[in-house]
Amino acid sequence: MSVNFAILGAGRIGRVHASAVASVPGAHLVAIADPMHAAAEAIKEAYGCDIRTIDEILASTDVDAVVICTPTDTHADLIERFCEARKAVFCEKPVDLSLSRVANCLKVVEATKGTLMVGFNRRFDPDFMAVKAAIDAGRVGKVEMVTITSRDPGAPPSDYITRSGGMFRDMTIHDFDMARWLLGEEVESVFASASVLVDPVIGELGDFDSANVILRTASGSQAIITNTRRAAYGYDQRIEVLGATGMVSAENHGENRIQLADKDGFHSAPLLNFFMSRYTAAYANEINAFVASVTTGDATPTTGHDGLMALALAEAALKSVAEGRLVKVSEVL
Amino acid sequence: MSVNFAILGAGRIGRVHASAVASVPGAHLVAIADPMHAAAEAIKEAYGCDIRTIDEILASTDVDAVVICTPTDTHADLIERFCEARKAVFCEKPVDLSLSRVANCLKVVEATKGTLMVGFNRRFDPDFMAVKAAIDAGRVGKVEMVTITSRDPGAPPSDYITRSGGMFRDMTIHDFDMARWLLGEEVESVFASASVLVDPVIGELGDFDSANVILRTASGSQAIITNTRRAAYGYDQRIEVLGATGMVSAENHGENRIQLADKDGFHSAPLLNFFMSRYTAAYANEINAFVASVTTGDATPTTGHDGLMALALAEAALKSVAEGRLVKVSEVL
Amino acid sequence: MSVNFAILGAGRIGRVHASAVASVPGAHLVAIADPMHAAAEAIKEAYGCDIRTIDEILASTDVDAVVICTPTDTHADLIERFCEARKAVFCEKPVDLSLSRVANCLKVVEATKGTLMVGFNRRFDPDFMAVKAAIDAGRVGKVEMVTITSRDPGAPPSDYITRSGGMFRDMTIHDFDMARWLLGEEVESVFASASVLVDPVIGELGDFDSANVILRTASGSQAIITNTRRAAYGYDQRIEVLGATGMVSAENHGENRIQLADKDGFHSAPLLNFFMSRYTAAYANEINAFVASVTTGDATPTTGHDGLMALALAEAALKSVAEGRLVKVSEVL
Amino acid sequence: MSVNFAILGAGRIGRVHASAVASVPGAHLVAIADPMHAAAEAIKEAYGCDIRTIDEILASTDVDAVVICTPTDTHADLIERFCEARKAVFCEKPVDLSLSRVANCLKVVEATKGTLMVGFNRRFDPDFMAVKAAIDAGRVGKVEMVTITSRDPGAPPSDYITRSGGMFRDMTIHDFDMARWLLGEEVESVFASASVLVDPVIGELGDFDSANVILRTASGSQAIITNTRRAAYGYDQRIEVLGATGMVSAENHGENRIQLADKDGFHSAPLLNFFMSRYTAAYANEINAFVASVTTGDATPTTGHDGLMALALAEAALKSVAEGRLVKVSEVL
Repeated sequence: MSVNFAILGAGRIGRVHASAVASVPGAHLVAIADPMHAAAEAIKEAYGCDIRTIDEILASTDVDAVVICTPTDTHADLIERFCEARKAVFCEKPVDLSLSRVANCLKVVEATKGTLMVGFNRRFDPDFMAVKAAIDAGRVGKVEMVTITSRDPGAPPSDYITRSGGMFRDMTIHDFDMARWLLGEEVESVFASASVLVDPVIGELGDFDSANVILRTASGSQAIITNTRRAAYGYDQRIEVLGATGMVSAENHGENRIQLADKDGFHSAPLLNFFMSRYTAAYANEINAFVASVTTGDATPTTGHDGLMALALAEAALKSVAEGRLVKVSEVL
Repeated sequence: MSVNFAILGAGRIGRVHASAVASVPGAHLVAIADPMHAAAEAIKEAYGCDIRTIDEILASTDVDAVVICTPTDTHADLIERFCEARKAVFCEKPVDLSLSRVANCLKVVEATKGTLMVGFNRRFDPDFMAVKAAIDAGRVGKVEMVTITSRDPGAPPSDYITRSGGMFRDMTIHDFDMARWLLGEEVESVFASASVLVDPVIGELGDFDSANVILRTASGSQAIITNTRRAAYGYDQRIEVLGATGMVSAENHGENRIQLADKDGFHSAPLLNFFMSRYTAAYANEINAFVASVTTGDATPTTGHDGLMALALAEAALKSVAEGRLVKVSEVL
Repeated sequence: MSVNFAILGAGRIGRVHASAVASVPGAHLVAIADPMHAAAEAIKEAYGCDIRTIDEILASTDVDAVVICTPTDTHADLIERFCEARKAVFCEKPVDLSLSRVANCLKVVEATKGTLMVGFNRRFDPDFMAVKAAIDAGRVGKVEMVTITSRDPGAPPSDYITRSGGMFRDMTIHDFDMARWLLGEEVESVFASASVLVDPVIGELGDFDSANVILRTASGSQAIITNTRRAAYGYDQRIEVLGATGMVSAENHGENRIQLADKDGFHSAPLLNFFMSRYTAAYANEINAFVASVTTGDATPTTGHDGLMALALAEAALKSVAEGRLVKVSEVL
Repeated sequence: MSVNFAILGAGRIGRVHASAVASVPGAHLVAIADPMHAAAEAIKEAYGCDIRTIDEILASTDVDAVVICTPTDTHADLIERFCEARKAVFCEKPVDLSLSRVANCLKVVEATKGTLMVGFNRRFDPDFMAVKAAIDAGRVGKVEMVTITSRDPGAPPSDYITRSGGMFRDMTIHDFDMARWLLGEEVESVFASASVLVDPVIGELGDFDSANVILRTASGSQAIITNTRRAAYGYDQRIEVLGATGMVSAENHGENRIQLADKDGFHSAPLLNFFMSRYTAAYANEINAFVASVTTGDATPTTGHDGLMALALAEAALKSVAEGRLVKVSEVL
């Protein structure tokens, strides 16, 4: 069985998913929707699909599944409409910036018995999958400490920061999801410490650019997340999991693997600088997993609930920064 | 401008090139030829191309270029016929196992002003390209010593060994080409030392499975190649170039980049085990470069002459093993 | 000028310092004091020094400096007595487990114009010194984030835990000092999250075995410390400093640097398991620096104030764990 | 039992051994001999030993063992005289530059039942010992290919080159010994390819500065040695052993283990630049092993025969360069 796709939104992340759909056997891109004609046209040219409106796609009998790549404030509505139209839905994170809106949306998904996968692409990175597989195979024993280093090469433009809901809801949310996944146990409380070190404009917008977060589970396992919006040496994405009998870790990806040695020592390339090149394989694997779920009817590997919980951790982190104390996740849900 | 391709031969390497052609913007797979119907059908299914005979492809006006992936003993004839038919030709190495047959074939290519690129895929590996770029940028000064470690994970079946012309013409030929490319100067003499250590059957077939080769240029620069048909830890492909002011090297590619630490120490995955997974990017880059040459009319980055010279080094190596002495390349040309 | 030493205490750390003194040109071990005759005798045998009582050493005109390696509850008294006797004093951390006792002791040191160096050996590790030198040379720009991973291979015996003042005052204290040193700015507030994951007995003693700590300075720079009493793969000691223009980090030290590759992948040795073997060079460098200060009259590189501040961070961390909130260092001083 | 040492020769290597003797429990430095008074005095000052003439040391009843660090052309005579005087002898390589002189000297050692250890310090490097231990433990299966990369940071002065017997007898001799040790099987034939790339003066002196050597055993196992007198990035000393079931390798030692990351990538320190700092532990282990042999009467781990065989490989390599062919070791013995 093959799955016919439409992509809603032909911006940067829409193009990433178009390329991912094209690379997955059994997935076919049928239509693209975007009010910006040039953007939609570019995807039509590259992949030979139709340009349709969202309403047309809702009504298309030749579309099995949609990938929602539109602005965040349209996600929840689109999820609801497409679930009601009995299309399988893959939605880029976040479902919404409001926890209650997310909760209501998930009720609609449930009521319609809809298929919803939320795009936490990093879970599908081959290295991070190998880390998770090592944990699940018992190679490190009971997980005790997770360390996530997640640093962007540079800060996004100011208007993006405003729209995105801020660093915790936009950037750390990936790390919150990663921590939940690797801990294998729900997070109970959050402490966050945030600073403005990179750009004072970010502070003026009420956001932060540098943060450390500690997460705790009921059993006392902990995760630390260290974030910044500026890493001179590239997009720094590392995870490390300490267990009772060992540790497993995933290294960064450089632009290449050559090493130059001279009188000053040994030199290697900076890290891949962009999330798209760093996570190319992850995006393809993610769509592959979605196609598998749509085809088999099995649960999607990331769910609306995952989207809700990651956002709850972001809310708890914001509350922790404001109040300088450990915040229970139950306080924000 | 786009380039329409036909692929001759739908075996393992034919599939590699079909996938590479599919991944290159501006390249379109129009036809596949193979007497084995099932093999041709599989490529037709996957890429939506026609199945045609070689004669039909020769006559096809909608085919600009062919990729020759047929058995070695057909390469030279096909190159000649397709050059005469004014198709651009990409041919898997080797052009032929006989130096004189190669030389005659290249004369036809020249007489027809044909475009011939010989598939030395490793030159297009992103890491090796970065090594070459570092050399060309003067980062290591004058090249003095090249070290190539090239080890297959396991020996091929006996019938392949017989057909392939033996280790030097089949396996080391890639390293001979790499050495020529990295030295930046023609090789003048060759010493080779070959053993049968992996499998006595290989020796009974008159071939070797383990060898070290020293190449020398007129200026006294040297390259060493160390080969074996068995590396327990995977497909070992490393290069290292020492120059007057520094060294540049390319590391291996493991199955993943995770590290597991336990009471016994630190553990990481074996190397990618198969040339196709190790050199996926190289195969795509190679076709990309061929398309660029066909489109612009510029010389191909690897030529029939490169194919001839790599084979000459293999012949000199065989003579060196037989006679236990340094052999001038001019002795075999 | 050479410096004549007496060592007070011939236990494990006394032996470390005896060996360090022996390795430093210009330092001579004159006397050892220990009520355990056998321990003192072993050092006498190995280094050819006298056995004397502490009172005899106080009165010895041939002793310029002492190294205090006695139990913690004797440190402050001994520092005061030897400063009054005009001997230079090197004291193992901590000065005392009580902040007020430390403060009073430091007043005596000041009143007597005594020389006191507190043994934060890690500052003298060659790699960590190179990290600090890179920061001081401006190689990473303004320091923004310090990450200290500090994991013991295994928990100490119960009676040690009781005597030591607990994990923060005994183990993390080294990391607190390292963080202060690398941040280059005083810590203003502390959040700590501690768990009992390794051994419930440790919890019954009122201590923890696993913790993450976030430190903040007035400028918003942060440090995170991640500790555990159990790392299956050895003594894990890493630091990483992110600045505005780069990052500098120090790697672990394995038992050796060989790598074994086999069908299961690549394997290297576990980490050096013991603080003495990991920090052999640091102990020698530390005594060397002390000798230099004694000889030149310059300030010691680590001071009583450093001992006080590291202990204050430990107290703040304990208060943070108890109250689940960010604690200002000024609250405990 | 302790062993009393005299050192003959207070030059650079004499100082290395004085320091090594001082670091070994059970070894005592009693006397130093050197016609250069200042050199002898420096060692007397540092280690508190006597200055004596060689004749006085021969007659000294308080000297059990000597370390010969005098010029090469005196080694064989001194070995004979001290064996006859019933002192245990540790001699820096080479025993002599003439194979026949070495052979005669060894006859005297045998006739006097003398103890002679020849200083192949690299066998005592902790990493190389771990490599050998892994081989002996069967971790890589039967040894098939040994790769030794051995590069000096810079060429020695001209007069040293003349005196030393040239690169093969002076520098490669260490690698010849290492190859014999790691192959675990005697070398049967040698091919060498030598160039002058670093400094034409070296060529004018009849020597080489860059070379590759292939060694073969009767079973077909091979070793390659790649040498140069100039590595911009420091003293490059690596070994790699491929066996039927795996590979074991030893990495280089940098000046430190820190890594700096900035916009240009990742940077680490050059290699330790000097054989003395690189092999400090090896020199101490070597004397330790000699002391153990002297004390127990067991055979020394490196012998006069090892010195003879390494020199024979150097002679065979020279003959191979001159004649451009594979040379049997039996041709030079």
